[in-house]
Amino acid sequence: MPDGAPPRFSLNQITARSWSLAEAVAGCAAAGVTGIGLWRDKVAETGVAEAARLCADAGLAVTSLCRGGFFTAESPAGRQAALEDNQRAVDEAAALGTDVLVLVCGGMVGRDLAGSRAMVAEGLAALAPYAAEHGVRLALEPLHPMLCADRSVLATLGQALDLAEAHPPEVVGVMVDAYHVWWDPDLDAQLARAGDRILGFQVCDWVQPPPDVLLGRALPGDGVIDLRGLRARVDAAGYTGPIEVEIFAADLWSAPGEQVLRACLDRFRDHVG
Amino acid sequence: MPDGAPPRFSLNQITARSWSLAEAVAGCAAAGVTGIGLWRDKVAETGVAEAARLCADAGLAVTSLCRGGFFTAESPAGRQAALEDNQRAVDEAAALGTDVLVLVCGGMVGRDLAGSRAMVAEGLAALAPYAAEHGVRLALEPLHPMLCADRSVLATLGQALDLAEAHPPEVVGVMVDAYHVWWDPDLDAQLARAGDRILGFQVCDWVQPPPDVLLGRALPGDGVIDLRGLRARVDAAGYTGPIEVEIFAADLWSAPGEQVLRACLDRFRDHVG
Repeated sequence: MPDGAPPRFSLNQITARSWSLAEAVAGCAAAGVTGIGLWRDKVAETGVAEAARLCADAGLAVTSLCRGGFFTAESPAGRQAALEDNQRAVDEAAALGTDVLVLVCGGMVGRDLAGSRAMVAEGLAALAPYAAEHGVRLALEPLHPMLCADRSVLATLGQALDLAEAHPPEVVGVMVDAYHVWWDPDLDAQLARAGDRILGFQVCDWVQPPPDVLLGRALPGDGVIDLRGLRARVDAAGYTGPIEVEIFAADLWSAPGEQVLRACLDRFRDHVG
Repeated sequence: MPDGAPPRFSLNQITARSWSLAEAVAGCAAAGVTGIGLWRDKVAETGVAEAARLCADAGLAVTSLCRGGFFTAESPAGRQAALEDNQRAVDEAAALGTDVLVLVCGGMVGRDLAGSRAMVAEGLAALAPYAAEHGVRLALEPLHPMLCADRSVLATLGQALDLAEAHPPEVVGVMVDAYHVWWDPDLDAQLARAGDRILGFQVCDWVQPPPDVLLGRALPGDGVIDLRGLRARVDAAGYTGPIEVEIFAADLWSAPGEQVLRACLDRFRDHVG
């Protein structure tokens, strides 16, 4: 029997990127992990139905699906294509038995930051009814402002909540990722405001200087974020759900999955749980 | 006679870092530039009195002095040393005839973000009376959140104003640097709030992805910031003073000063002025 994982622990599968979906499911089951966050490209390896069956057979709850979003596009056709892809992502989330679809909202079109942000609001409004019909909640994820230009014009939790509040809380909420929000002087106020719109909490650590803008994230404990303190603040806002370890890191992505998962479990116990 | 520089143009001398102070002053004068932002390490090359004389003789207004700050330190002795260095910076600003001392407030001590931010507030409170006595205004500069850990726990304009408003507007204000604030969804509201606390405006551009967290900045026009639009928003907040071109960029720092200044003037005309 495995020792089991700490309460609330979930592996976001991109952290152990060298694993296929089937390998990640088997590896989690072997380690006593009971939750996994899936990625659409990995799910596509087996197809959605088989991925759902693998997770169910292994007793794994799918804690989220990454990702939809990318609402910003130069042309109306591009934005329509994004909507259709997002509808497929909703379908996949529903089929996988998770009610949380993570949205990374897209970067800037040209130099038009305000216009790009308006596209996100419009894209979300177009998608939300479809998500509601399928029982999937949309988790807007603000990314760190250093990713504003190319990945997410949604840059703060407050901005995400401004968008979310145009929709019912059972349809649109937020994903709180420690890496993206830890620096925000307004964080406590926005967490309190978020309340039951917090649909997920993801952890990794910030090393300074980041060795890479995208892939420079680190295991909990290797950086400067007070993750246990942040977890307590997220808990205090009312969130009691799974905590995913999600790390974009070149070194982890090339390491064997078993080794990565073991490190995530150890660090989670020492710095988060 | 030189053609002259565009109205409000000032060269922040770190942009043409290969120039000594004397070379920068001569280069600006030759190009018809009438404002320069100085750095303390460059001023130290000649001493403050000689630097002041060189600028005055060349008809150059010193638009700011960079920089004081770095209030965060593990020990009381370290914080006292920072205060004393900041007092010397105030003396230097007064002697150079500028009333704007730029403050970069310092990074995190350990993992204690809230405690580090409290140190900044305390350090500012200790320094402000000295600055007031010497007729120097302290310009709190929020840096981009990607620099929060090691350089500035002050990460947004709103947070800077929260600090500034504990002091009279004639003593403590803010430096608005396009590179650091352009992404902020709350920027317009905070600029309006800032009003006459805006003590300076600096421009450069953001390229994506930044080739380097510190030295990856670019000439106006090479990136995604709508600098002319941002200038209009800063103007609308009531700021009518000099606009410094300040660029931390490895390629510019190794280029001849004349070439760098010429590029700054051209880009300022095309993308800012």
